[in-house]
Amino acid sequence: MAGFKHLVIVKFKEDVVVEDILKGMQKLVSEIGCERIFFWGQDIEGEEMLRQGFTHAFLMTFEDKQGYTAFVGHPCHVEFSATFSTAIDKIVLLDFPSVVAKAAT
Amino acid sequence: MAGFKHLVIVKFKEDVVVEDILKGMQKLVSEIGCERIFFWGQDIEGEEMLRQGFTHAFLMTFEDKQGYTAFVGHPCHVEFSATFSTAIDKIVLLDFPSVVAKAAT
Repeated sequence: MAGFKHLVIVKFKEDVVVEDILKGMQKLVSEIGCERIFFWGQDIEGEEMLRQGFTHAFLMTFEDKQGYTAFVGHPCHVEFSATFSTAIDKIVLLDFPSVVAKAAT
Repeated sequence: MAGFKHLVIVKFKEDVVVEDILKGMQKLVSEIGCERIFFWGQDIEGEEMLRQGFTHAFLMTFEDKQGYTAFVGHPCHVEFSATFSTAIDKIVLLDFPSVVAKAAT
């Protein structure tokens, strides 16, 4: 769980087929392959007030910042990002080295 | 990396000693103990425009939704949340079962 994290939370536009975006993201991961861990999720539980309209979170873990930099600069990512950005209503990105407070038990 | 996720992103108020909050959070984790994985990070890399003022991310992984529910309802969490909420300028919470697109290699 250590490593460099790339966290994206978004609200998609209403007419977007989210399933297509997720397929594109899965394809991207298989094409680039420099991330170690990648998962996403859709909030179907939280309180609307606390979600503030955001619905999906995506988190990638890289070995280190170099891995992240290689991913971001990869032509497939650049191409995907252009498509992705047209599908979102709002977004927050956070990139950070993680501090592990508790590892898996 | 599977499991139920509790994701919190925040911007702390300017006069807050973040180190104290992090210590309190570490204590909380050791007291409750029902989360499997917990890490946090401070974005010192991203573009301000994409961060939208948010600075810290916290992510907890629970075995399942029951684990998360037990955590949220624990008296120590209720007490900590009251303190935490006074320290934040803005916050987004997302709670979701995770979909693993790529496991650790």
